[in-house]
Amino acid sequence: MAEKPAKGLADVVAASTALSDIDGRAGRLSYRGYDIHELAGAASFEEVAYLLQRGTPPDRRALDAFRAELAAGGAPGKLTSANVAEVAVSQEPMEALRTLVSLASADDPDKDSNEPQANLRKAARLTAQQPGLVAAYHAARTAQELPAPDPGLGLAGNFLLQVTGQRPGQRASEIFDTCLVLHADHTMNASTFAARVCAATLSDMHSAVVAALCTLKGPLHGGANEQVMLGLEEIRREARGDAVEAVAPIVTGRLAAGEKIMGFGHRVYRTEDPRATHLREMSGELARAQGDETYYLMSRRMEETVFAEKGLYPNVDFYAATVYHYLGIPTDLFTPVFSVSRMAGWTAHVIEQHNDNRLIRPDSEYIGESNLTWVPLEQR
Amino acid sequence: MAEKPAKGLADVVAASTALSDIDGRAGRLSYRGYDIHELAGAASFEEVAYLLQRGTPPDRRALDAFRAELAAGGAPGKLTSANVAEVAVSQEPMEALRTLVSLASADDPDKDSNEPQANLRKAARLTAQQPGLVAAYHAARTAQELPAPDPGLGLAGNFLLQVTGQRPGQRASEIFDTCLVLHADHTMNASTFAARVCAATLSDMHSAVVAALCTLKGPLHGGANEQVMLGLEEIRREARGDAVEAVAPIVTGRLAAGEKIMGFGHRVYRTEDPRATHLREMSGELARAQGDETYYLMSRRMEETVFAEKGLYPNVDFYAATVYHYLGIPTDLFTPVFSVSRMAGWTAHVIEQHNDNRLIRPDSEYIGESNLTWVPLEQR
Repeated sequence: MAEKPAKGLADVVAASTALSDIDGRAGRLSYRGYDIHELAGAASFEEVAYLLQRGTPPDRRALDAFRAELAAGGAPGKLTSANVAEVAVSQEPMEALRTLVSLASADDPDKDSNEPQANLRKAARLTAQQPGLVAAYHAARTAQELPAPDPGLGLAGNFLLQVTGQRPGQRASEIFDTCLVLHADHTMNASTFAARVCAATLSDMHSAVVAALCTLKGPLHGGANEQVMLGLEEIRREARGDAVEAVAPIVTGRLAAGEKIMGFGHRVYRTEDPRATHLREMSGELARAQGDETYYLMSRRMEETVFAEKGLYPNVDFYAATVYHYLGIPTDLFTPVFSVSRMAGWTAHVIEQHNDNRLIRPDSEYIGESNLTWVPLEQR
Repeated sequence: MAEKPAKGLADVVAASTALSDIDGRAGRLSYRGYDIHELAGAASFEEVAYLLQRGTPPDRRALDAFRAELAAGGAPGKLTSANVAEVAVSQEPMEALRTLVSLASADDPDKDSNEPQANLRKAARLTAQQPGLVAAYHAARTAQELPAPDPGLGLAGNFLLQVTGQRPGQRASEIFDTCLVLHADHTMNASTFAARVCAATLSDMHSAVVAALCTLKGPLHGGANEQVMLGLEEIRREARGDAVEAVAPIVTGRLAAGEKIMGFGHRVYRTEDPRATHLREMSGELARAQGDETYYLMSRRMEETVFAEKGLYPNVDFYAATVYHYLGIPTDLFTPVFSVSRMAGWTAHVIEQHNDNRLIRPDSEYIGESNLTWVPLEQR
């Protein structure tokens, strides 16, 4: 019958996928056969979303049509729009997104169908709506006007425009676009797996994506990038004098005390996460452009210290934190930003699960007592 | 590295639990060591929720205190209450519950803590709120007054009061209470597993429960009980003359056409689901009390036919359908009723996961192409 428990299902194959592949020992990640190093800086997020959801890179005509579909489906539905303001003052960002995406199904014309074409349309709408939802949430809680999207900007540039209130420079847009590409999919990470467990009951795409958002919220998953930035800010506050020089002794002390430093190590990679390579470079570029390299240099020092002490590599969350910070994104929106990108992958996984479905229903090992006799309340 | 894929994780141990245990060959189910046959009809749902969430059966004092805690925490929060009416006219029951429970975290004083005591309090509140949420949703969509809960009734009786608008008889309350006991937990079913995958990122209890609701919604899981009733109603409409006699030829024809009959077979049980035994009996009792046994007798005939043709046993959803029907619960609330009960188990699993946590992050088998070269858009 059941095998011995693999705690956390480490190394247990839970599903087959043609969406992404990781070689943890070589430090390689690919989407549908394209190495992430081929895609970073070369493919737009819209191309990658198309690739993941529809199977092949779009040609010019297909990409134009897809961009038009994203633009047409990008406005949040009536029920969601009507509730953004109230939710924004009552719920934290990831709680709010969980609520707002749950509301969004009400206005989706395909909400009752799991058919392939309906799923493709829903995937495009959910991908298109997510950046605007995050921006609308932020505008509402700060009582600021939400800038209208600029048709001359792609999804990445429009997100920066709508969240920061300022039209981003071309290089900032490009860098953020690359961030979205790097985070778009990553095999059976916890939120994607939750989406597949949900979809495998033949529940619908909105439900699966809400389950993914619930799961991404956790600090051991999407919440980590925010924790990285908060950690850097804390060390900078604690440091009397040079914050960069303060990193090594503080981190060493924390490690000695058994504390975990967020943003290091990964269940799958045994070498550098290939996404970290790009994020480190972009963090350095943005730091130099801003004229204040402190957080970047602190990160470098932290990376050196953690590697020397623990042999751990930075993961995708580590340099994403400073990249987002330099791009002017509020720290508590880092995990929502992750969701803007991963929406492309989640929806593609739901499509894949529905196309060849089997209920995901594992076994468990029982470790409690047995054969107890129920004593009626009066005799207890 | 990774083992061969076990599609759907069948027989793969995903977690250890002391909450419930199934012996699929013997047809046994137990909660914390108490056989479901010991509990059905002997333990109240409140006692079972306490048992699951807190580890042992309560004595009189502990049970009184728990009932008081449930009563105090049962009113939906401000944000949820303010939105019930709008959600009720815009979303289907399970979509609505997904939204309303997501909103509920806003008013939970323990929302930012995963500590054991906070989790226990949240588990009690979520368990107490769920029946009222379902009833409030139903009252709002039918533009009827929601009856105030009656302190003389338990959770089961109050649910029937609030949903049907009529004070239930004692036997109806007892039968529904037993239904809630029978559905309270069931090892690593898909929704519970989704809750644990979510909680294992150290996301919070409300998020985990929302992920579970998303998953329960699917027709291969919680949605099945509703499908059973719709199937019976359809056959009754199709039958010209005696609906009971019409069952065998219709079901035989559908099976021959390769159609699936909902409510039969289970991933884990190889014999009769022990919950079905009780539900069959209660369905018959309610049918006789109503003086119209048609749906009960149709169900018996369907059970005989499917067993003769396919060797499949009815599962928990099959007789739950007619029990709920005879109790006056609208068919599209059957899955929400499942959630009222399973909330006790979901929350107990989140507590258990947080108390001994490891990220649940399985592997996947890559079945796509490799080593492709990304051709720039201009050259595609």
